[in-house]
Amino acid sequence: VTQFTKKGAIVSDKTPNTTSRRSFLRGASLGVGIPVVGGLLAACTQQLAPTPGAPAVQMQHEEPAAPAGQMTFDEMDAMHEAGIKAFVAGGQTATLGNQPLEPRLDGNVKVFDLVCSKVQWEVTAGKFIEAWTYNGTMPGPEIRVTEGDTVRLVVTNNLDESTAVHPHGVMVPNNMDGVPFVTQPPIKPGETFVYEFVAKNPGSHMYHSHHNSTKQVGKGLLGAFIIEPKNKAQDPAYDLDYTIIMNDQNGGFTFNGKGFPATAPLTAKLGQKVRIRYMNEGLLIHPMHLHGLPQLVFARDGWNLPQPYMCDTVNVAPGERWDVIVDCSEPGVWAFHCHVLSHAENDHGMFGMVTALIIS
Amino acid sequence: VTQFTKKGAIVSDKTPNTTSRRSFLRGASLGVGIPVVGGLLAACTQQLAPTPGAPAVQMQHEEPAAPAGQMTFDEMDAMHEAGIKAFVAGGQTATLGNQPLEPRLDGNVKVFDLVCSKVQWEVTAGKFIEAWTYNGTMPGPEIRVTEGDTVRLVVTNNLDESTAVHPHGVMVPNNMDGVPFVTQPPIKPGETFVYEFVAKNPGSHMYHSHHNSTKQVGKGLLGAFIIEPKNKAQDPAYDLDYTIIMNDQNGGFTFNGKGFPATAPLTAKLGQKVRIRYMNEGLLIHPMHLHGLPQLVFARDGWNLPQPYMCDTVNVAPGERWDVIVDCSEPGVWAFHCHVLSHAENDHGMFGMVTALIIS
Amino acid sequence: VTQFTKKGAIVSDKTPNTTSRRSFLRGASLGVGIPVVGGLLAACTQQLAPTPGAPAVQMQHEEPAAPAGQMTFDEMDAMHEAGIKAFVAGGQTATLGNQPLEPRLDGNVKVFDLVCSKVQWEVTAGKFIEAWTYNGTMPGPEIRVTEGDTVRLVVTNNLDESTAVHPHGVMVPNNMDGVPFVTQPPIKPGETFVYEFVAKNPGSHMYHSHHNSTKQVGKGLLGAFIIEPKNKAQDPAYDLDYTIIMNDQNGGFTFNGKGFPATAPLTAKLGQKVRIRYMNEGLLIHPMHLHGLPQLVFARDGWNLPQPYMCDTVNVAPGERWDVIVDCSEPGVWAFHCHVLSHAENDHGMFGMVTALIIS
Repeated sequence: VTQFTKKGAIVSDKTPNTTSRRSFLRGASLGVGIPVVGGLLAACTQQLAPTPGAPAVQMQHEEPAAPAGQMTFDEMDAMHEAGIKAFVAGGQTATLGNQPLEPRLDGNVKVFDLVCSKVQWEVTAGKFIEAWTYNGTMPGPEIRVTEGDTVRLVVTNNLDESTAVHPHGVMVPNNMDGVPFVTQPPIKPGETFVYEFVAKNPGSHMYHSHHNSTKQVGKGLLGAFIIEPKNKAQDPAYDLDYTIIMNDQNGGFTFNGKGFPATAPLTAKLGQKVRIRYMNEGLLIHPMHLHGLPQLVFARDGWNLPQPYMCDTVNVAPGERWDVIVDCSEPGVWAFHCHVLSHAENDHGMFGMVTALIIS
Repeated sequence: VTQFTKKGAIVSDKTPNTTSRRSFLRGASLGVGIPVVGGLLAACTQQLAPTPGAPAVQMQHEEPAAPAGQMTFDEMDAMHEAGIKAFVAGGQTATLGNQPLEPRLDGNVKVFDLVCSKVQWEVTAGKFIEAWTYNGTMPGPEIRVTEGDTVRLVVTNNLDESTAVHPHGVMVPNNMDGVPFVTQPPIKPGETFVYEFVAKNPGSHMYHSHHNSTKQVGKGLLGAFIIEPKNKAQDPAYDLDYTIIMNDQNGGFTFNGKGFPATAPLTAKLGQKVRIRYMNEGLLIHPMHLHGLPQLVFARDGWNLPQPYMCDTVNVAPGERWDVIVDCSEPGVWAFHCHVLSHAENDHGMFGMVTALIIS
Repeated sequence: VTQFTKKGAIVSDKTPNTTSRRSFLRGASLGVGIPVVGGLLAACTQQLAPTPGAPAVQMQHEEPAAPAGQMTFDEMDAMHEAGIKAFVAGGQTATLGNQPLEPRLDGNVKVFDLVCSKVQWEVTAGKFIEAWTYNGTMPGPEIRVTEGDTVRLVVTNNLDESTAVHPHGVMVPNNMDGVPFVTQPPIKPGETFVYEFVAKNPGSHMYHSHHNSTKQVGKGLLGAFIIEPKNKAQDPAYDLDYTIIMNDQNGGFTFNGKGFPATAPLTAKLGQKVRIRYMNEGLLIHPMHLHGLPQLVFARDGWNLPQPYMCDTVNVAPGERWDVIVDCSEPGVWAFHCHVLSHAENDHGMFGMVTALIIS
């Protein structure tokens, strides 16, 4: 029976592991009890800068090449491990969506130029899809302003069908609302339309197409629209600010336009408080489960809740935004994924809506 | 670069729009910056009374006649515009579901007669489906009583299969609960069953079939059951009271039995407070997104929340009811739809779960 | 018109029911107005002990033998009634999932031995599926400890593919988190792995496979992990404690591994307070609707809410746990089911995610 006391050790009938219980307990207190974790932790904390030109991983996690029943368990495990290793190595795609867009100033107006065009977008290493984008990325650039700012969006349509931009959740005058034939004419191919309004309501919002929207948003015409409050003390304190935009059409199940292992991990130092802004631009719910640490939910659709509450799984429905704080009180590589398991793992390993919060 | 300063104007390479920025800003302050909006606003505010006998619109939004790839963008836009115009014109169906049913009095008992029968129900202009109904409409009539009232439902089954009525969310004695073989025998074709109980718990409830219910509720055997509180001050103040019952089986994606453009807009005057009661009788979630204005969520399943909260997207799961208040502080035609975009728009324009809140 | 005043009585044109209204009102005050209910109430209150060896019901609720259109309404009603009768008779399967597992003690450590193996699992009477289980049941045994306990899970893998156990919602050191290639190597067939940690955060949690998890959790590798608080006064008071684990893959729509009519009813005495712990291990949402009585929602994912609230339909997304209290203030057999109706009833009667709260 003594073999059962070896916490964290694999004990097989053939090759009993002789690591002492004490060494594992020591490891446990650091949250890095076995070598594979320590290596991953070290590797991932340096991986937010992508690696252009890295060789493409051929494995397609969401499109199994052979029925699982024909794999041995060792072959299956090897595919799972390859996915984790590719994630550790930075996911190996050269592009990033949801990157900050610096406005140009026209007097006191913050001007953001958005050009709609089609690009080939790399969802996972070597897997390219046709995306319809703002400024060439899926999601489009992050627009971030401060409550009270006057904001101008100059939208040029280089697609081959009409479009329009709806500032989702942002309280704008009606004629800036972006609904063709209701608040404006559609922006036809080759045309430019100018939206201008004062950013009144702070919080985590979005912008996306409101014309042929099932297709256009699905194809990638979406982005984050964040309005910082004038009084930052109205939000809980935090050290780091991450946004996760979910989509489930073009490119499958994605966070910020990437599927695992190309998803970027969230990194933090022990003791930091991380704000996460969830935004669902897909057609399905995505209950976001963080391992190991609770999430303090404090805002819904940009509006602070009268009483924040704790949970570990935040269900995000299409169109919703939720803001949470995670207190990074325990080191380690914490899996972080949609808990609709079929959006996250199959016989060939993890894919789609999977990332990690890495606390070092 | 000057062309970019023309807020709200389309700027094309071929036909530059010369409207000055000032005129658009002036329009913006009214929320009616461009002609198409003003016309829609004027038209829609008078359209709650349907137009019997109006010519049917031939366009079927949810059943595209040709693949989108074969349309030019102008053809696509024309179809989108036709949907909006049909909505402005009143949707052109002659019937309305969810209409108040005046009770007859038997002493102090409020008696509601409900007859189950099949009808041909017009979901959008010219598109008829077989609906199973209470009193000939889908949803059935709205039952509205006051807390403490004694209520009698006299249900006659003129269908060709058995049925039963469950007062969903209403706290009734067990033998009035409407579950065949558990609390009562089924009501067989040709039979009548009488439900009677005191309306104890105020709020937004429902009534629907609880026999072969996936089919029978899907087919239309459903309605709103609203119990007004004795003390109206327990709810937030409001000027107008709207109910939106969602279904996603018979007739596709519907609000109160109609798909866009036959859905009725909600209308209000600037400054009014509108109460909206969401009720989901379908099989899917429907996150209800209102443009431009936040929703104050104050009751769930008829029970007032200890602390109301704000959001712009209210996710309504099957069987749930949510009550919200919208403060109509900004004029305009505000799109209002399920944010599962595939329930609301396709290549041929908006359809299904789309309506508008029109504030004038 | 007098026939309409016979509350609770079926009135047919051919065989008028002559029961007086007074007798039904008397019945109503007891919530047991008609004989079928009284019998069910009596029968069900004694049915939690299953009946081994009972003859299997041949009727397959979720697999209709003939199109509904070919049934008469009497034939359809007979199938519905047969389901209710089978439920009353105890569901007639010999096994139960989610049963308490008594730990063995190693010093002050509570040790739970879990063996992964495949079994034939009876979902409804006579319907067997291949389940992947912990200790031979689907769900696996309930693990219940107290905040501050040191817990050891000794997991032996007798399956033919690798696995790992994730303590979902439990705050553990990272190397005890159960994610292969991230926090540990996979547990290969024939191997044993030992998890050990202090149970820090009280509440309703779960344990399940985190390797090839869509399949493995779907197949049954899941169970409840409940941590009682040291200070029981932090939770609302309750007399009875039930857990409902939902799954929607293996065996269809199940509560604790059984589909209706094999689901176990919840029983209580009038005036008791019942705690229900909902846990969703499936891929779909399941809005749990209780008839007749509201649910006080007081905890989410094991974390007590700052302000509990009332409702009658608790939407449970994959990975979520919700804790509620039901005050059993009204006697009767209260239907209790997922309100996605297609998870609960078809032409052949109720099936899947249906049970009852029986208050006597």
